[in-house]
Amino acid sequence: MTAPNKAGKRIGILTSGGDCAGLNAVIRAVVHRATGYGWQVLGIKEGTQGLLQRPVQYQTLDLGSVDGHMMRQGGTILGTTNRGDPFAYPMPDGTLKDRSDEIIGGYRELGLDALIGIGGDGSFAILHKLAQKGGFPMVGVPKTIDNDLGKTEVSVGYDTAVAVAVEALDRLQPTAASHHRVMVLEVMGRDAGHIALAAGIAGGADVILIPEIPYSIESIAAKIQSVRDSGRNFALVVVSEAVKTLEGTGVKKILQGGEKRYGGIGDYIGEKIADATGAETRVTVLGHVQRGSMPSPRDRLIASAFGVHAVDLIAEGRFNRMVAWSNRGVIDVPITEAIEHYSCVELDGALVKTARGLNISFGD
Amino acid sequence: MTAPNKAGKRIGILTSGGDCAGLNAVIRAVVHRATGYGWQVLGIKEGTQGLLQRPVQYQTLDLGSVDGHMMRQGGTILGTTNRGDPFAYPMPDGTLKDRSDEIIGGYRELGLDALIGIGGDGSFAILHKLAQKGGFPMVGVPKTIDNDLGKTEVSVGYDTAVAVAVEALDRLQPTAASHHRVMVLEVMGRDAGHIALAAGIAGGADVILIPEIPYSIESIAAKIQSVRDSGRNFALVVVSEAVKTLEGTGVKKILQGGEKRYGGIGDYIGEKIADATGAETRVTVLGHVQRGSMPSPRDRLIASAFGVHAVDLIAEGRFNRMVAWSNRGVIDVPITEAIEHYSCVELDGALVKTARGLNISFGD
Amino acid sequence: MTAPNKAGKRIGILTSGGDCAGLNAVIRAVVHRATGYGWQVLGIKEGTQGLLQRPVQYQTLDLGSVDGHMMRQGGTILGTTNRGDPFAYPMPDGTLKDRSDEIIGGYRELGLDALIGIGGDGSFAILHKLAQKGGFPMVGVPKTIDNDLGKTEVSVGYDTAVAVAVEALDRLQPTAASHHRVMVLEVMGRDAGHIALAAGIAGGADVILIPEIPYSIESIAAKIQSVRDSGRNFALVVVSEAVKTLEGTGVKKILQGGEKRYGGIGDYIGEKIADATGAETRVTVLGHVQRGSMPSPRDRLIASAFGVHAVDLIAEGRFNRMVAWSNRGVIDVPITEAIEHYSCVELDGALVKTARGLNISFGD
Amino acid sequence: MTAPNKAGKRIGILTSGGDCAGLNAVIRAVVHRATGYGWQVLGIKEGTQGLLQRPVQYQTLDLGSVDGHMMRQGGTILGTTNRGDPFAYPMPDGTLKDRSDEIIGGYRELGLDALIGIGGDGSFAILHKLAQKGGFPMVGVPKTIDNDLGKTEVSVGYDTAVAVAVEALDRLQPTAASHHRVMVLEVMGRDAGHIALAAGIAGGADVILIPEIPYSIESIAAKIQSVRDSGRNFALVVVSEAVKTLEGTGVKKILQGGEKRYGGIGDYIGEKIADATGAETRVTVLGHVQRGSMPSPRDRLIASAFGVHAVDLIAEGRFNRMVAWSNRGVIDVPITEAIEHYSCVELDGALVKTARGLNISFGD
Repeated sequence: MTAPNKAGKRIGILTSGGDCAGLNAVIRAVVHRATGYGWQVLGIKEGTQGLLQRPVQYQTLDLGSVDGHMMRQGGTILGTTNRGDPFAYPMPDGTLKDRSDEIIGGYRELGLDALIGIGGDGSFAILHKLAQKGGFPMVGVPKTIDNDLGKTEVSVGYDTAVAVAVEALDRLQPTAASHHRVMVLEVMGRDAGHIALAAGIAGGADVILIPEIPYSIESIAAKIQSVRDSGRNFALVVVSEAVKTLEGTGVKKILQGGEKRYGGIGDYIGEKIADATGAETRVTVLGHVQRGSMPSPRDRLIASAFGVHAVDLIAEGRFNRMVAWSNRGVIDVPITEAIEHYSCVELDGALVKTARGLNISFGD
Repeated sequence: MTAPNKAGKRIGILTSGGDCAGLNAVIRAVVHRATGYGWQVLGIKEGTQGLLQRPVQYQTLDLGSVDGHMMRQGGTILGTTNRGDPFAYPMPDGTLKDRSDEIIGGYRELGLDALIGIGGDGSFAILHKLAQKGGFPMVGVPKTIDNDLGKTEVSVGYDTAVAVAVEALDRLQPTAASHHRVMVLEVMGRDAGHIALAAGIAGGADVILIPEIPYSIESIAAKIQSVRDSGRNFALVVVSEAVKTLEGTGVKKILQGGEKRYGGIGDYIGEKIADATGAETRVTVLGHVQRGSMPSPRDRLIASAFGVHAVDLIAEGRFNRMVAWSNRGVIDVPITEAIEHYSCVELDGALVKTARGLNISFGD
Repeated sequence: MTAPNKAGKRIGILTSGGDCAGLNAVIRAVVHRATGYGWQVLGIKEGTQGLLQRPVQYQTLDLGSVDGHMMRQGGTILGTTNRGDPFAYPMPDGTLKDRSDEIIGGYRELGLDALIGIGGDGSFAILHKLAQKGGFPMVGVPKTIDNDLGKTEVSVGYDTAVAVAVEALDRLQPTAASHHRVMVLEVMGRDAGHIALAAGIAGGADVILIPEIPYSIESIAAKIQSVRDSGRNFALVVVSEAVKTLEGTGVKKILQGGEKRYGGIGDYIGEKIADATGAETRVTVLGHVQRGSMPSPRDRLIASAFGVHAVDLIAEGRFNRMVAWSNRGVIDVPITEAIEHYSCVELDGALVKTARGLNISFGD
Repeated sequence: MTAPNKAGKRIGILTSGGDCAGLNAVIRAVVHRATGYGWQVLGIKEGTQGLLQRPVQYQTLDLGSVDGHMMRQGGTILGTTNRGDPFAYPMPDGTLKDRSDEIIGGYRELGLDALIGIGGDGSFAILHKLAQKGGFPMVGVPKTIDNDLGKTEVSVGYDTAVAVAVEALDRLQPTAASHHRVMVLEVMGRDAGHIALAAGIAGGADVILIPEIPYSIESIAAKIQSVRDSGRNFALVVVSEAVKTLEGTGVKKILQGGEKRYGGIGDYIGEKIADATGAETRVTVLGHVQRGSMPSPRDRLIASAFGVHAVDLIAEGRFNRMVAWSNRGVIDVPITEAIEHYSCVELDGALVKTARGLNISFGD
């Protein structure tokens, strides 16, 4: 590796964990801000995997790399991965091995002055541990379509995921009405109901099921009956994938013979509704289209603000922090706080209150 | 019922079978053309169901009914249904009953001079039989997202269904690339592969599986390996829901314990690909969003042309015909021919040739 | 008029001033919340015009009126108007007349218990004056694509207007790059630069001109030269319609011979840039498509929250207030404060800072 | 330049004239098909400009160059230009110079076996003349948003341009209805009315003005009055930019003081309608967003079929031909015929008939 750019700093950036819309806009903002400072930016490939391989896998990022259409694209030009905690890395022989020193070595090989990690709580926990052990400066940018990261009002990728889910409801409504059906839409959300809640309100749902609120089929059926009584012949139901079956288990356990996964909680709920109401019911599982969509304007705005601020934190020598959105602006918080604090749907928050005001049932 | 409009004709219109995008644009065009002739249009509710009920369920359609946003909406303002061949109608006690006379009676009660039926081959067969038995004039407008109706190049709803599938591929591509995944998209198409073929080409698929071309997993795996060899780290696979398993059965039989349906052929293919290639594979089943979307400009154009021509056929006293699209314009054909002639993907047609030219594999 | 609904209240709702996306979602939320209370909702047509006419122009709004597709549509089902301050109403003979008593009379004739006005600062000033004079309870819901209303972080319609402008930039970028052009996009914003600022950041603009920051052509030209120096062959420029010419006047005065309006400030800036840089320049004036688009998910969320809260204010007997968005939730403020307080772009706010961090030039 | 690839052919490809959606999909298809033959593809930059410069400006195109998102993007990765007939090339000193030999020299320098030119009639005329003079094999792929190229049913870029115009009408309709306005939309179309006609039908226009049909303001005003009489309070008017003023001149001559262009025919028509009907009228000039949009599925399909067939023509040694769309498939025609034959709107074609059936006025 050649000597670091003496005229300025050399910083690394990587994307880690599940991809989402807006990652490229963060990368672009980081490159623009760092270039403005006269720094060099190295984009590390495949999250920490790029630092594990030899030679280290990276690409130099300059203004030309991030021009034009790039910020408008979903995914991440750097690649990402969910595989492998480097402190207990799964080896081909089935054992787990601590490979953290290799990653720290990869970081050193690039001659970096600091690292920007774009990730969620899991990625931050690993990156923070690596930074502590390796003694290198690190700053985090929060991204997750689930929006369950603590200490930030919103994470990159959430707004777009909601928009894709709302668009699906916009499309299911006319076909539901034409056929007098109950349409069930299963949306993403590993542990929290944020996508389901926002999409359900904006998409005109009658029922929203989220893991934060226990439901009963009787309650859902009663709501669907009240919709019928009002003279309407269809209903829209949004279910977060994080919702459990009434038996308290995830749907995969129930439906899978062995390791195979067919269907999801949406299918389970759809069947229960059909049984309880006699309604013609159809289920749509939205899946990965929620991740790869062109980022919404708001995701691009937030991503851009985050990227600029992350570089500024490095310029100011303020490390181990996560940039965050609060009250219309960018702040930063200790990354350890963000890792520890989980954000599920607030039951007395504005959105739940709005949903109840719209006579949306949570099945409770 | 009051006497028919002596100043002109009174015609009925109904939508039958599965809904799709563009039905409202047909209805609007019919109302505009008939109003131009000074005729009256009655919209019958829920396909032939509206003629079965007493009082007959219908609404008068005038220019005000079809103004503004209506043509832009998916679904059908008249409602539709897949239920019930009136010649063998399923009764609550489980028996089948010939209720065709009731429907013909409903038609007579409205004092109609002719009926426009918007439907697919199944609906046309029933409507034609009713028209023959009842001795009333009937004209058909073809609609089906599957585009498998004979004697017309294209049916209403197909273009939009393709567009929704392409949009899904546009969204799956960046997330596939970010994670080095094989993304499988299952699209609609009851018996024919038209949606899969067009969407696969326009959406940049590497593999397209359609029922018209037998596949092997080895062949699919070889294609995915050749993509890897070219230096690309992801692949897109489109599967028509009409594709059978290698065992020659529909996937429902295999995956269902009893009558329940979990998953589809996409899940089956995804699992086989993962097993054969070791690739990380994800499956998306697009489902009903393909039906309810806002109609594409082309679907609105075709629907409008069909609606106008259907009314003109009545004006000219030319009945038992289906309007059709051929070589940039509207023609009409005997409806019996359309019912008899099924249109699957032509293996030596322009689209298959184009797909092969793009090195897309059909798994053969 | 029949007697008021004794079982509950009867409230009126109207939309006033320029239309925007999300108005129907407010109306829907009001009807849902009020119906939940057992109240009756009357929708007044064409803003205060409906109260001016005899018979008073209104429609009863129940759940059936707001079902289905309605919340997804742009515009307002009630109609709206910019015409006519009722305290100085333009009469056919050219004189101005105080017709406020007629409007108050219209309100009384409907037997209303309270009025919800959806509008901007101008509409609120008039409605508040009417409410004071007429002694009737009133609550305001803020809407304006310009987002320049004080005391609320965001108004209904803004998010969608930004989204439409960003989409235009997404489309102009590839054609700009293909032809090596400077593309100028003029966006709405009567007096403030909010749309231009947010759209410019999210849409990848190189230059953003807003009325809050004086510009010089030299500075813009220098930015475009620096883009060229970086190796990029095109540039995107966003101009708020509120920007003045360098001579300090609105562009209409300059370009219009008499009362006719051809072109706008975008044309002016485009010509100046072409002259100063020699670049091939093209101008797009986005216009009214920013108003009528399908509301974005965020606009629907905010609109829904506002509608519910507005009804709750009436239920609680808290009048002369405007609902507002603050820090992720709904609050309410005295409507007089909202009328008095104007919100232009904060020069030290997060968005301006982000834009500067991205090396976007404001022409200063 | 190194020796040509002996294992196969080396072909060049360039895009020429105004850009549009779908060009990248043609390029991708050419690369895929040629790579399948074992050939090499060189992409020439900026149309014929790349062959004029020394060193010749080009990039090698392989499968990696055209992977992933590229086919989904508007514009052309090769760049294009409208400048400069090489047989009469505008020199800096204001004279015109025959530089055709330089371009032929550039072609030779690359060691090409054939050239694929993607363009319109103007580009084809020049390319054909160059190919004749230089004695090199050439094949043309038709692209133009205007769809006015003879001998092909459709050209690349048209479907997307129509879709963008329809989307604009979808957005103008609600705001028109809310404010009781007449909305005028000016769409592209240099000499023919194809975009206006198709977009007007699919977008629900009441009036469509195209250069092929003379109009009178009286007739337009009568149509708007009949809309009012039917109880509707708004109207949509689509105007092709190719429409002339009533004085028979283009609007630029009228509105421009000198060489500057402010406004267009839309503004002229809007003003005339306002004067004749007293209606509140607003004008939107759609402009360049019609070119740069993400290509529609149909444009990608046609582009793909064209690209594959163009390579096949070279493989078969059939030159001086243009690929074309006819009756659901790809054919090819002598390029001289395509250059000579201009395609304007057929007055007795299916679309005009459909428009009249929908009671759309052409102002005649």
